[in-house]
Amino acid sequence: MRFFSDNAAPVHPAVLSAIAAADDLDTAYDGDRWSKQLDARFSALFDTEVRALWVPTGTAANCLALAALCPPHGAVVCHRDAHIQNDECGAPEFYTHGAKLMLADGDGAKLTPDTAGAVLSLARYDVHQQRPHALSITNATEYGRVYTAAETAALGALAKERGLGFHVDGARFANAVVATGAHPADLTWRAGVDALSFGFVKNGGMNAEALVFFDPALAEATLFRRKRAGHLLSKGRYLAAQLLAMLDGDLWLDCARASNAGAALLAAAAGDRLIHPVEANEVFLRVTPDEAAALRAQGFDFYDWGPGEARLVVSWNQREDALRPLADAIAAL
Amino acid sequence: MRFFSDNAAPVHPAVLSAIAAADDLDTAYDGDRWSKQLDARFSALFDTEVRALWVPTGTAANCLALAALCPPHGAVVCHRDAHIQNDECGAPEFYTHGAKLMLADGDGAKLTPDTAGAVLSLARYDVHQQRPHALSITNATEYGRVYTAAETAALGALAKERGLGFHVDGARFANAVVATGAHPADLTWRAGVDALSFGFVKNGGMNAEALVFFDPALAEATLFRRKRAGHLLSKGRYLAAQLLAMLDGDLWLDCARASNAGAALLAAAAGDRLIHPVEANEVFLRVTPDEAAALRAQGFDFYDWGPGEARLVVSWNQREDALRPLADAIAAL
Amino acid sequence: MRFFSDNAAPVHPAVLSAIAAADDLDTAYDGDRWSKQLDARFSALFDTEVRALWVPTGTAANCLALAALCPPHGAVVCHRDAHIQNDECGAPEFYTHGAKLMLADGDGAKLTPDTAGAVLSLARYDVHQQRPHALSITNATEYGRVYTAAETAALGALAKERGLGFHVDGARFANAVVATGAHPADLTWRAGVDALSFGFVKNGGMNAEALVFFDPALAEATLFRRKRAGHLLSKGRYLAAQLLAMLDGDLWLDCARASNAGAALLAAAAGDRLIHPVEANEVFLRVTPDEAAALRAQGFDFYDWGPGEARLVVSWNQREDALRPLADAIAAL
Amino acid sequence: MRFFSDNAAPVHPAVLSAIAAADDLDTAYDGDRWSKQLDARFSALFDTEVRALWVPTGTAANCLALAALCPPHGAVVCHRDAHIQNDECGAPEFYTHGAKLMLADGDGAKLTPDTAGAVLSLARYDVHQQRPHALSITNATEYGRVYTAAETAALGALAKERGLGFHVDGARFANAVVATGAHPADLTWRAGVDALSFGFVKNGGMNAEALVFFDPALAEATLFRRKRAGHLLSKGRYLAAQLLAMLDGDLWLDCARASNAGAALLAAAAGDRLIHPVEANEVFLRVTPDEAAALRAQGFDFYDWGPGEARLVVSWNQREDALRPLADAIAAL
Repeated sequence: MRFFSDNAAPVHPAVLSAIAAADDLDTAYDGDRWSKQLDARFSALFDTEVRALWVPTGTAANCLALAALCPPHGAVVCHRDAHIQNDECGAPEFYTHGAKLMLADGDGAKLTPDTAGAVLSLARYDVHQQRPHALSITNATEYGRVYTAAETAALGALAKERGLGFHVDGARFANAVVATGAHPADLTWRAGVDALSFGFVKNGGMNAEALVFFDPALAEATLFRRKRAGHLLSKGRYLAAQLLAMLDGDLWLDCARASNAGAALLAAAAGDRLIHPVEANEVFLRVTPDEAAALRAQGFDFYDWGPGEARLVVSWNQREDALRPLADAIAAL
Repeated sequence: MRFFSDNAAPVHPAVLSAIAAADDLDTAYDGDRWSKQLDARFSALFDTEVRALWVPTGTAANCLALAALCPPHGAVVCHRDAHIQNDECGAPEFYTHGAKLMLADGDGAKLTPDTAGAVLSLARYDVHQQRPHALSITNATEYGRVYTAAETAALGALAKERGLGFHVDGARFANAVVATGAHPADLTWRAGVDALSFGFVKNGGMNAEALVFFDPALAEATLFRRKRAGHLLSKGRYLAAQLLAMLDGDLWLDCARASNAGAALLAAAAGDRLIHPVEANEVFLRVTPDEAAALRAQGFDFYDWGPGEARLVVSWNQREDALRPLADAIAAL
Repeated sequence: MRFFSDNAAPVHPAVLSAIAAADDLDTAYDGDRWSKQLDARFSALFDTEVRALWVPTGTAANCLALAALCPPHGAVVCHRDAHIQNDECGAPEFYTHGAKLMLADGDGAKLTPDTAGAVLSLARYDVHQQRPHALSITNATEYGRVYTAAETAALGALAKERGLGFHVDGARFANAVVATGAHPADLTWRAGVDALSFGFVKNGGMNAEALVFFDPALAEATLFRRKRAGHLLSKGRYLAAQLLAMLDGDLWLDCARASNAGAALLAAAAGDRLIHPVEANEVFLRVTPDEAAALRAQGFDFYDWGPGEARLVVSWNQREDALRPLADAIAAL
Repeated sequence: MRFFSDNAAPVHPAVLSAIAAADDLDTAYDGDRWSKQLDARFSALFDTEVRALWVPTGTAANCLALAALCPPHGAVVCHRDAHIQNDECGAPEFYTHGAKLMLADGDGAKLTPDTAGAVLSLARYDVHQQRPHALSITNATEYGRVYTAAETAALGALAKERGLGFHVDGARFANAVVATGAHPADLTWRAGVDALSFGFVKNGGMNAEALVFFDPALAEATLFRRKRAGHLLSKGRYLAAQLLAMLDGDLWLDCARASNAGAALLAAAAGDRLIHPVEANEVFLRVTPDEAAALRAQGFDFYDWGPGEARLVVSWNQREDALRPLADAIAAL
């Protein structure tokens, strides 16, 4: 059983069905009747007028958002363990044409107003340095931690005070919503967020993410940038249909509830082995090489995450009965 | 019935089936068992060792290819009606970091050694100008014309003589193969082509194109560029599966045969109205506004293509019986 | 005697003196007492509030201006013989991060509302093409022609109507001012110009040009771009001093009067050989290879400018008595 | 008396004379008889065949060098206090089209094989991260420390082992040569250095730095990049003449000897107040706000460098007798 990442999990049957159902000739790009529903559907979800664009990857969503918020001579404050810093091969620099990422600290890959503020205080605000223009956080974080609405709002206040745009990498936004119980609006625009990379692929989608702008004006230039980056697919309806299927009946929340619950099950078994509190669907364990080998020998695969550390990610389709053996194996180490 | 573009046609059932069949957890990105077959499958098709990468759009394929062949201070010679010049919102400039497109002439959007050579002769080859580094053609062209193997080889010889890389935008490569009856190798590496954007989306695919490098070394940096551009999808198996399904049993040729045949049917009806010889699946007609309106009144939709001109593109799924009424309507104008 | 280009002429003695006089320690970059005068001095000259920045080359001035007026996904309309298109090795694309130059026609490298409008009419204004954001002209042009205030204003009106920024490459702006007799304001902001590359190097300067923004707000981001491009020299006072020396007592106009007069002298001798009317300081002649050789044998050096054509550029320091022998030699051909 | 930075000091009289003497019409750009001497003169100095290009700023030299050594999808390892990271407004990212700077630690802004190696060990070397392609150090460093030939060679060995290009930001290279007593070759190519930004502006020059490539092949594309960045000045002879004047009779070493000696004088007076050993021409002092105010009240100006810290930079023209009062004032604090 594989716990490498939720990014390789199967696609939810409802998404597959929606794809099949979209197989009707329609206008190309985003002129089709599926794509045209996105703004309204996401506006309803967020309880405010938004612009929602499909893109095929979270990297595209993140970096189009950053390009909308930060000029080439600007800088983006993010956590030093952020996906945009470590896992996108410089896509932020590519899309922003060379903006700098300013790296801040924080437990569990979470920024705080203090840690982000400390980095901002180092900036000289003269013409010899790239000036901070944006703040970017990941919710849930790369270590499976979540920002509450209040924590997000505190960072949003900092951003506003310093004149920064505010972006959330929500590759696992669904898990954060479930974990916090917060309304999606409270984790985003009501907390000062300007743009959200709203992830679906890790949560049962195939190859569609939503890039949501809470200030519709920010979307305008992004339409050109999306095309220019080769992300305006001609049969966009197959992406739009995925997003709509995930929103229908709050499937996105159901899937995240399942993966969060699965991780909680493992966390309960792990006890003191936990490196980070388990709040979403990721579990980081302290394990010796022998222990790791023992788990693998029982058929559980996962990534080593530094010496003596293992990362296990629970996917939407790994339900309790399937996870019980792993939980038992962890408890038995 | 819609003849706007083959880029919005339905997905072939075999492709949909392949997608459904790929719905098994596997390694992320391109580490899965589908993606791993691509090099071998395309190498077999082209009768030489190639590297084949999936990407979700033709724009991504084209521009990753150009970035592999041309530095920022270089230039790419292409036809002034080329897709890379007119329809990609500057994606070539984005991916190459600012290389210049040098525009050449030629009937039916086809370059010749003479027209490409004329542009090359204008270059001064000093440090004050971007030096030509690559030649790019579209086969079949934006006007539905095809380059034969001999025509391609003549351009390949020019490219070699001038030290240029040679790229083919093959968004409709299948149509060109069918139209010319040439072996795919003769339209590419045997004619000096270094990189091919091998299109599947316009030919029954959903959202997967193949970027084929005939010099495997060219692929190395492209792997980073693909990631950096946000085109390394995590569930890449769903793209790889589409390509494999299209190659199985030469489905790609069947689909192109159908659309070429459909266009031939319309061409026969159009007679003197044809603006360009119909060699692939596109038909350009001289029509008055009234005539265009008459066709539309009968339920046939298409793009105006300049004053007094109409473009009709036949898709893989528009078979003879469905096209007959349109042919009759054209003949009756 | 060399007539290759005014860009290699000696530096005016007053400029050399000003450089020597600036050799007093002061604040670095543009914080010194010379640089701080620029805004006021150029504002007085143009009779409106401007921001004036020194840069060491015309290419830097041009491309910083274009970057201020056009985003990466935009396009700049210019003449197909413009310096920014043919002689800057893609600097516009580098500084704008990939904007496209849209090439228009016009006699003597001059755009007209008709020729620029024709190019604008070809743009589709959809997301698949880079949208025109700026218009750039060269005054005096690459063929030594000048735009009058009225001609400039007509283009400015077009720019305003289409929502385009308007840039003037004034590498030989002084020659245009002298030739037209127009007030500098009438050739710029009163005609709708937003940014001017105000050339001094071809007119007796050493290595300082002025980039003048008629909308001061446009200068803000340019300060960062200038630094980021490596054009914020630490001993900027030596550049500022050059500009101030050229403005003192209208030395810039004296120099341009001299070179224009010199060219007029040659033009009078050339008669029917002139390819373009001589309005500034450049003379384009029809000459056979033998005639060109004959001139060179008499010690006159110049560039061939295509088959059967020669370009001779008169510099500020080539006065009438020195030019008389060349005029006679041309007349005697 | 001002100790803000050597970057604002007067120009050495010999440099001014050389500029005046270069005021003879010659070929434009770098085709003149001064520029043509550079390769030979720097080759003689370094005792190997080099290519030497003038550029007007150290930022241009640094970033053209980095662009020659690192692709957009690569990374450059440097000290976290490096000029390229903190003082060039993202010029490295601009010129490399988005390469990432990987920040390493080390006392006095000096990297060691251990600290650079530690950063390299964090890189995953998969396609999801920008791969290290270059190592860049500053000699003398931003804190006035110097790398000996042996220390440089140790880093060169690391670079070679990891397949990295090796760049030295030598804005104060002269000071390092004087401080170490090493042959310039031993601080560069014999230690594995590929490219040197050889600074002259801080050492008595006006606006010319040399970019030296020890692998001549690296210079080829740089010629295009220099033009494209607007750094190919038309009257390049005035830059070349500065460099030649500084090399004549080892003036560059005389100037650096003077500024190093001046700093040593201040260091002797400062005793325990020194934050860093004084090896070149920079002095970092621990001073209270009152002490700083006291020095300023006596007419000595300098930058605060963080709380309780002052930086004083000695310029080539600040000789012993002029510095004695400051030394006395520091000793008297």
